[in-house]
Amino acid sequence: MDSRPIGVFDSGVGGLTVLHECLVTLPHEDFIYFGDSSPDRFPYGPKPAETIRRYAHEVAVHMVERDVKLLVVACNSATAAALPDLQREFAVPLIGVITPEAHAAVQATRARRVGVMATEATVRSGRYPAAIAVLDAGVEVTQVACPDLVPLIQNGDVNGIELHEAAKRYAEPLKQARVDTVILGCTHYPLIRPMLQRIFGRGVTLITSAEEVAREVAATLDRRGVGNDPARDGTYRFLCTGDEHAFQEVAGRFLQLPLTEVERVDPARLEIAA
Amino acid sequence: MDSRPIGVFDSGVGGLTVLHECLVTLPHEDFIYFGDSSPDRFPYGPKPAETIRRYAHEVAVHMVERDVKLLVVACNSATAAALPDLQREFAVPLIGVITPEAHAAVQATRARRVGVMATEATVRSGRYPAAIAVLDAGVEVTQVACPDLVPLIQNGDVNGIELHEAAKRYAEPLKQARVDTVILGCTHYPLIRPMLQRIFGRGVTLITSAEEVAREVAATLDRRGVGNDPARDGTYRFLCTGDEHAFQEVAGRFLQLPLTEVERVDPARLEIAA
Repeated sequence: MDSRPIGVFDSGVGGLTVLHECLVTLPHEDFIYFGDSSPDRFPYGPKPAETIRRYAHEVAVHMVERDVKLLVVACNSATAAALPDLQREFAVPLIGVITPEAHAAVQATRARRVGVMATEATVRSGRYPAAIAVLDAGVEVTQVACPDLVPLIQNGDVNGIELHEAAKRYAEPLKQARVDTVILGCTHYPLIRPMLQRIFGRGVTLITSAEEVAREVAATLDRRGVGNDPARDGTYRFLCTGDEHAFQEVAGRFLQLPLTEVERVDPARLEIAA
Repeated sequence: MDSRPIGVFDSGVGGLTVLHECLVTLPHEDFIYFGDSSPDRFPYGPKPAETIRRYAHEVAVHMVERDVKLLVVACNSATAAALPDLQREFAVPLIGVITPEAHAAVQATRARRVGVMATEATVRSGRYPAAIAVLDAGVEVTQVACPDLVPLIQNGDVNGIELHEAAKRYAEPLKQARVDTVILGCTHYPLIRPMLQRIFGRGVTLITSAEEVAREVAATLDRRGVGNDPARDGTYRFLCTGDEHAFQEVAGRFLQLPLTEVERVDPARLEIAA
């Protein structure tokens, strides 16, 4: 029995889609969610890989200080830029995204044409085409960088015309490429899954990683024997580097959870500690 | 080719879960959504069957006046109280809920113990246990009337403690009955599916009707040859009997669509016309 919490981290509210699936699978575990939402740092997607690596390192140091027993990098940009480095540096198990979606997409596509919607950093990294090619070199991959989506989703304005128009614009090249499977390659995007499913229509399968990641977390705890008492009710709390009230409102709405414990962490403190 | 719109009707925003699936399946059709959200009429769930039948009749008359080619009763309370009467009275095809969920639940349950969360009117009607018994008389059904859920969901306050506590309270008897499948027997409930899935955990399958209903609508249009031109982009507009700004805000957020056309219909006008 190991009563330490599990850490989940993203640049903003996107990683909540992963946290949600973890709460479904592991209701008896404690969770600390970290949203790096300070306007100086959020969003990660358009930033150089070097900067994202530094941010991810700082957050990981902070989470290890808080004694997490496992850390989920619930951010595709951070996974693409930093996961291998983090895994080399820290002893705590680190679980990322990208690989599970690539696997699911290869299983799902009948036409063997897969689309990827992701941030600029993730597209530039080439991790999705590489991961897909390892599994099936015959699958054609079309990537679209979608820089406007994350800031608009983070605002919480999911019924705004601007977000809707942006989503339609980014979907267009994937429709033209006649993909039948689209990887939502950023943890923010599942938050607008209904909108995207309408835009692509019934014939396109949307792939997200959250449930796969939750399964991976559960299996890792199990194999290492570091799960908590299955009879208890887990707790959850939230850290963010941006405004805690804005985070509480938007995150609570997306997660459909009353967020009582939201604590602001000063980004300057992260930099010094790291 | 038939360019008339399809009507979808509910007491509030719940039927949007059905409209969403229709928009995914039939992006080239026009839709008129009717939310009977006036505080004098909403919610239907706690009202006597006689009253619900009258409301459903009034709305159906209004939608037929607007020349719909098919009407979806996207409200379990109205389906339970009024669908057979409406089908006898109107020539336009009428599609309801309840039967599709019963069917899916019987297919899904391994333990042959199914739970039903629904409004008081739907529970009282006994339609779910009856529909399930027709398909598999060996399935044990536990029903829970959940009167607090619809008003709290309609407020849009999905991260409120009150809604969260109510959902947990209603789930308790179903957990005690050790059901492995739960029918969300009200079209409002899928709007809090993430919350309910966390409360029940990974081992319980949640059943909703929206996608089944969309499939039924598509098949009906197809068999009757009354579909619209598949190359066009459909339109959607919204009618409600309550405050149109409140409807626009909450419905837009749940549907993740910018709702530009929302028109208030005076309930008095409905009564006179019917």
